[in-house]
Amino acid sequence: MKVLVIHGVNLNMLGKREPGIYGNKNFDDINNIIKNKAKRENIDIEIYQSNHEGEIVDKIQEAYDNAVDYIIINPAAFTHYSIAIRDALAAVNIPFVEVHISNVYKREKFRHKSVTAPIAIGQITGFSYYGYLMAIDYLKYRENGE
Amino acid sequence: MKVLVIHGVNLNMLGKREPGIYGNKNFDDINNIIKNKAKRENIDIEIYQSNHEGEIVDKIQEAYDNAVDYIIINPAAFTHYSIAIRDALAAVNIPFVEVHISNVYKREKFRHKSVTAPIAIGQITGFSYYGYLMAIDYLKYRENGE
Amino acid sequence: MKVLVIHGVNLNMLGKREPGIYGNKNFDDINNIIKNKAKRENIDIEIYQSNHEGEIVDKIQEAYDNAVDYIIINPAAFTHYSIAIRDALAAVNIPFVEVHISNVYKREKFRHKSVTAPIAIGQITGFSYYGYLMAIDYLKYRENGE
Amino acid sequence: MKVLVIHGVNLNMLGKREPGIYGNKNFDDINNIIKNKAKRENIDIEIYQSNHEGEIVDKIQEAYDNAVDYIIINPAAFTHYSIAIRDALAAVNIPFVEVHISNVYKREKFRHKSVTAPIAIGQITGFSYYGYLMAIDYLKYRENGE
Amino acid sequence: MKVLVIHGVNLNMLGKREPGIYGNKNFDDINNIIKNKAKRENIDIEIYQSNHEGEIVDKIQEAYDNAVDYIIINPAAFTHYSIAIRDALAAVNIPFVEVHISNVYKREKFRHKSVTAPIAIGQITGFSYYGYLMAIDYLKYRENGE
Amino acid sequence: MKVLVIHGVNLNMLGKREPGIYGNKNFDDINNIIKNKAKRENIDIEIYQSNHEGEIVDKIQEAYDNAVDYIIINPAAFTHYSIAIRDALAAVNIPFVEVHISNVYKREKFRHKSVTAPIAIGQITGFSYYGYLMAIDYLKYRENGE
Amino acid sequence: MKVLVIHGVNLNMLGKREPGIYGNKNFDDINNIIKNKAKRENIDIEIYQSNHEGEIVDKIQEAYDNAVDYIIINPAAFTHYSIAIRDALAAVNIPFVEVHISNVYKREKFRHKSVTAPIAIGQITGFSYYGYLMAIDYLKYRENGE
Amino acid sequence: MKVLVIHGVNLNMLGKREPGIYGNKNFDDINNIIKNKAKRENIDIEIYQSNHEGEIVDKIQEAYDNAVDYIIINPAAFTHYSIAIRDALAAVNIPFVEVHISNVYKREKFRHKSVTAPIAIGQITGFSYYGYLMAIDYLKYRENGE
Amino acid sequence: MKVLVIHGVNLNMLGKREPGIYGNKNFDDINNIIKNKAKRENIDIEIYQSNHEGEIVDKIQEAYDNAVDYIIINPAAFTHYSIAIRDALAAVNIPFVEVHISNVYKREKFRHKSVTAPIAIGQITGFSYYGYLMAIDYLKYRENGE
Amino acid sequence: MKVLVIHGVNLNMLGKREPGIYGNKNFDDINNIIKNKAKRENIDIEIYQSNHEGEIVDKIQEAYDNAVDYIIINPAAFTHYSIAIRDALAAVNIPFVEVHISNVYKREKFRHKSVTAPIAIGQITGFSYYGYLMAIDYLKYRENGE
Amino acid sequence: MKVLVIHGVNLNMLGKREPGIYGNKNFDDINNIIKNKAKRENIDIEIYQSNHEGEIVDKIQEAYDNAVDYIIINPAAFTHYSIAIRDALAAVNIPFVEVHISNVYKREKFRHKSVTAPIAIGQITGFSYYGYLMAIDYLKYRENGE
Amino acid sequence: MKVLVIHGVNLNMLGKREPGIYGNKNFDDINNIIKNKAKRENIDIEIYQSNHEGEIVDKIQEAYDNAVDYIIINPAAFTHYSIAIRDALAAVNIPFVEVHISNVYKREKFRHKSVTAPIAIGQITGFSYYGYLMAIDYLKYRENGE
Repeated sequence: MKVLVIHGVNLNMLGKREPGIYGNKNFDDINNIIKNKAKRENIDIEIYQSNHEGEIVDKIQEAYDNAVDYIIINPAAFTHYSIAIRDALAAVNIPFVEVHISNVYKREKFRHKSVTAPIAIGQITGFSYYGYLMAIDYLKYRENGE
Repeated sequence: MKVLVIHGVNLNMLGKREPGIYGNKNFDDINNIIKNKAKRENIDIEIYQSNHEGEIVDKIQEAYDNAVDYIIINPAAFTHYSIAIRDALAAVNIPFVEVHISNVYKREKFRHKSVTAPIAIGQITGFSYYGYLMAIDYLKYRENGE
Repeated sequence: MKVLVIHGVNLNMLGKREPGIYGNKNFDDINNIIKNKAKRENIDIEIYQSNHEGEIVDKIQEAYDNAVDYIIINPAAFTHYSIAIRDALAAVNIPFVEVHISNVYKREKFRHKSVTAPIAIGQITGFSYYGYLMAIDYLKYRENGE
Repeated sequence: MKVLVIHGVNLNMLGKREPGIYGNKNFDDINNIIKNKAKRENIDIEIYQSNHEGEIVDKIQEAYDNAVDYIIINPAAFTHYSIAIRDALAAVNIPFVEVHISNVYKREKFRHKSVTAPIAIGQITGFSYYGYLMAIDYLKYRENGE
Repeated sequence: MKVLVIHGVNLNMLGKREPGIYGNKNFDDINNIIKNKAKRENIDIEIYQSNHEGEIVDKIQEAYDNAVDYIIINPAAFTHYSIAIRDALAAVNIPFVEVHISNVYKREKFRHKSVTAPIAIGQITGFSYYGYLMAIDYLKYRENGE
Repeated sequence: MKVLVIHGVNLNMLGKREPGIYGNKNFDDINNIIKNKAKRENIDIEIYQSNHEGEIVDKIQEAYDNAVDYIIINPAAFTHYSIAIRDALAAVNIPFVEVHISNVYKREKFRHKSVTAPIAIGQITGFSYYGYLMAIDYLKYRENGE
Repeated sequence: MKVLVIHGVNLNMLGKREPGIYGNKNFDDINNIIKNKAKRENIDIEIYQSNHEGEIVDKIQEAYDNAVDYIIINPAAFTHYSIAIRDALAAVNIPFVEVHISNVYKREKFRHKSVTAPIAIGQITGFSYYGYLMAIDYLKYRENGE
Repeated sequence: MKVLVIHGVNLNMLGKREPGIYGNKNFDDINNIIKNKAKRENIDIEIYQSNHEGEIVDKIQEAYDNAVDYIIINPAAFTHYSIAIRDALAAVNIPFVEVHISNVYKREKFRHKSVTAPIAIGQITGFSYYGYLMAIDYLKYRENGE
Repeated sequence: MKVLVIHGVNLNMLGKREPGIYGNKNFDDINNIIKNKAKRENIDIEIYQSNHEGEIVDKIQEAYDNAVDYIIINPAAFTHYSIAIRDALAAVNIPFVEVHISNVYKREKFRHKSVTAPIAIGQITGFSYYGYLMAIDYLKYRENGE
Repeated sequence: MKVLVIHGVNLNMLGKREPGIYGNKNFDDINNIIKNKAKRENIDIEIYQSNHEGEIVDKIQEAYDNAVDYIIINPAAFTHYSIAIRDALAAVNIPFVEVHISNVYKREKFRHKSVTAPIAIGQITGFSYYGYLMAIDYLKYRENGE
Repeated sequence: MKVLVIHGVNLNMLGKREPGIYGNKNFDDINNIIKNKAKRENIDIEIYQSNHEGEIVDKIQEAYDNAVDYIIINPAAFTHYSIAIRDALAAVNIPFVEVHISNVYKREKFRHKSVTAPIAIGQITGFSYYGYLMAIDYLKYRENGE
Repeated sequence: MKVLVIHGVNLNMLGKREPGIYGNKNFDDINNIIKNKAKRENIDIEIYQSNHEGEIVDKIQEAYDNAVDYIIINPAAFTHYSIAIRDALAAVNIPFVEVHISNVYKREKFRHKSVTAPIAIGQITGFSYYGYLMAIDYLKYRENGE
């Protein structure tokens, strides 16, 4: 099983940024935890981060050529307005899970809206970095025949 | 760790009801899977279902007296309008996870709104009954010190 | 043909309540008229009223087990917000007719919205208790091959 | 008892038009069914159809001069915007029943709004052409003293 | 000075229709009062009424060919939605006064909106048929050099 | 017949202010025209202007003690938000005509709304200062028995 | 004078629940204060609490049979959506006072709306449990002839 | 305890104005009742009324210099739009009670909104002039230690 | 290939009307250009204009009987509100292209909404009369197998 | 260069009022800083404050007679609703700068809207009293030829 | 004549992506068809695609330096939110045609809104890749003197 | 003091673009004026422009590593939708001033909304390039102890 994890804009600041909202673990720590999990679960994982909407669209399109089975994406701020990323995900037609580190429903009203959620398998929100691990567990389970 | 799982209105119809949306497993199957998971994880679990908003409020209040550590709740239709259940959850101040079996963001617009999500730890939506297991895993992880 | 008639919240007050809006016949009179009609039309009818949303949900679910052919429902105030009743009707997948005694479109704006109408066969509104008889006639006609 | 049945715009296409929504009976069939019903019930009935809003207004005004007792009207598309027809109905002050063949609440949002319903006796929606017969039954019943 | 008075839909019912709102004078009385006024003021007046939006558009277009100086129009129900009449008035570019017999701001919300008022000289609302006379006085005054 | 004319805020700037919108006549000219008209019509008129909402409220209340028969008011900017002036007019219960010099429906959206119009006899808008004369004519006509 | 005090959903948690919003007095304390007040004022009082909307509707209907003179109700979360309770109060036609312990206008936007207030005598909000005593004083005063 | 009672715009018309809404007692009667109440309760009271928003702001600011303990304010029409009065109340930081004589929730929609309520201790609405006495009782109770 | 071109309300005024918006060519010129184009492309074309919504509905229904292959329609003002024309186009189920002479998105907000566009093949807006030729070219191309 | 500085309602409370929002400097301090700045820059400055909307309108109108070159205005609460002040500024046609001490976009939603900003040269918000000095610098620069 | 064709985000996926919506031709095929057309029409054409909003802005700015005569742009997902692209098009002031392959009015509501259309010459929507050819034809015609 | 000036999308076109809105100075002129000002004020300044949202996010993140004290940002079109830039500014937690060259409140409604303003120190809008100098002056003043 080949999985692509996409971190959206500003997530590379994790650990530096607003720890009250995003927790204390920094970005590399989190990626290492994700990689270890993937290793344990025998998943071929790639982790990607960009602050550029266009690069995320490109990456999603490449996933199509690379025969990625699933995408786990935290579009961060792009969640709320990037129809471009939504359309890219629709175009490649790779099932994907949407993850948010903080509980977006506790925050500003504009963060309650996701343009990608309506075409996702599902959404995991509010469980800190552990949300990524939940997503991996789900994909594992799904792959094994639900 | 003591966990209360609350299934909201009509969830007892699972398996009978709209399999295109909710999947083929019936209600008892799902509860057995949850119980087995809890057993494996050494969690003291109680599962409760009611079609009555008032009974769910009562159950949440009892959880306070019974020193329940966490609640996992799928309020189903009540998600969208039961301020009473929201207030009960706020009153007992027990951390809770909100689970939805289907991806509510794919469905009618009125299902996109949750009155309970803003006070939840987080929300898991769209992963079929597996969402309950993800919630348990998270609580386990959280209890072990994040 | 087996038909379940469900009267929603406060309809037991008919005759006592706001006669300018609901007419002078009391609740028992109306039920007797419905029963007599059913008898004449050779319909196996059950009439049920509750002020409790949860009990109405339970009743609808039982209808599924009892192989009820059609439901005639006047959800009264629940019409406007009970997604729980809507979901119960969708879950049992029994065709139903929605009846309102008063013309809801003449009254407060919040009464113009029905959460159940979009999944009903149709809606009859404004013809006093006679609306129930119209619903029975329709079901009879439908049963006989339209 | 003198009754005028008014079919609004495009209803002359019934049978040709979108059978998934409107059923298979054609316009003449339906009118014959209505006429037979009226005959059986001893009602002096006239059936009128026009695609012209202005002609429908004229017809409603004539009904005033012709001492029509009741109007049964399916304004079709005019339902949603023709304040002119609403005002005509208010001006002649003849009690009327509004009928829709399809369940408008199942269709596009703009069809949920009726400008005439707030001044009608009541509305019957979703019962195919049988709605017209229900309207006649009601008028009969009403005429006989409720 | 050549003036065209256009009465919109249902205004021919004046005197018959809702006297609480529109007053007791009937349509012919009012037109006679208008004609007498025009005669006294030496105005070449034509009065026109139609229940057909299309005929009113045609009449407005003819006014262009007939070199009408001013139009006084009470579009009645068309006021609130007939962009066709608005566009006709804009197309012929004849200055016009909008008159309403009743005070529309006292009535249903949908009557507060006029699609023609933004391109009128001005609007006179609520002064019964006297509004037409006020409009004529104004045109007279305007013609005489303000 | 005793009439009070109230000019609202900034109307004392007429002639100085935005002639494209309000015309070239200055405030004193207009008041003289109004006074002359009143003299000719044998009306006991008082003209009042204030830039202070509170003073206008006071003036309206005094009108009650002074047995004023009618008020002609152009509240200017207060039209759009002064519920205080509306309530004063309702409290004294003196019939009033609302006048606007410019066609407010041609201007910014916030000028389309009048908080006073729903309790006025009627509204005259867009006829420059001539609107005041139209109001006087109407009151004269009304006083003489309509 | 016979008065029924109804406490809505979750109010039995008072004292346990969010003291920052609801104060430190617990539910029994408050009820005792209310009873003592009633005793002093010679009022026949009954206090009722339920977390079930349907039970509150039933209770209100019983009040009709029991000839209760006044109801004092704090519907709590039901305030914002229970049209069922509103209709019950309208049906029994017993004058009632609406009380809220916290100032709802300081809290979430959804708490600003009351579906019952438009048919209440009046609303008292923000004065902690003392609001109930104010309601009793008012009823006493009203009963004594205002 | 020093209390300032502020009556907003048009309240000096009480007794003259719309008795169906505001009752028959006139303004002086009500003030005398308030003063007598204050005397009985040993409260140093001042009563102030103005139709001028600016004077009410000035009065509130003076209260700060005069060490007023509490304000009881019925802003009347200003309730719905005077952010100036709201800011004055926030600036002086004197706890205040908002009183309305009529039940504003029974009246026009624009009266349902209060710009001052979110910063008040609480709001009392619908109990006629008795609302002022309830406010005084509450302040007395609060002063005595709740 | 049989094509019907329908010009909606006021388009017969082209050339006379607002040249800044609609250009200088008059209605006959444009129709001649369209006819010449059709001739060159071997298309059997009929051009129709009406200011009457009902006549346009009739014409669309006739197209069904006449086996018209395609309709090119510029509903003009009817674009924005005529659900009747939309329903006629849906009823005959003839593929159609919607054309607008001016760029409606540059004009008043109410012109941005088209009730017919959602059921059209496509929409061409802003290219003056040339839009009709573009529509013909497209139909030609489509007919030839795309 | 002649400049008029207008402080709106409640700004005289600066220093006393909500220091968390408005800072610690009191009103006289700030005015002295402004005057000193003006002196240094050779500007003929007048500073005016009023809690009365009408007085501010009067002052703006006087500025016209006094040949004031520029106005610097902080309308405070009036910013959000005083169309009267907006119209006065438009009437005198004196270029003006709008200043806000606090960052209004950080505060309640109703403070985000300014009715005067659309006709100002520009707006300076959030820089405490220093905003007035920025405005003066800008006017100086502008006067010197930009 | 020099024309720049800009394909927005994800259009490079054409042929791979959702053929039900976008047709079967792939991206290179379409570009070849466009190039051949341009050759036949003697147009100097450049075709550009990017998934990066910023690169599209850069490209539009370069067009200014390169003296491009017209732009044909299909902004795809950017259509609905990229004010940056709109401003770039406004800045270079090169007339442009907006093209959409699918009929956006048939799809999700958020696709009905275009931020670029109000400043375009016109919009062509729903004619598959043929829309680009229509745009070229129009530009040719326009260049030849309309 | 280290300051980073960020010019958003299309600002490099200044001088070329819409001089009626943005003035005649070109982009380099303005940057030179800013640099000279910084030199005079002894500020270590860097000026950056990009048409790429992602590059601006990167730049803001680098500012964190480079210990920039303040940011002055004119996000241009990004102001209205780039939550990504907002989140970057929140993440680095560097105080920033938002500048707009034109008075955005005079322009299209969508330009009135800023997603960054609620987390800025303040906003300066409408003073042409001079706004940047005002921002520098403010930062200087702030640095010197307010």
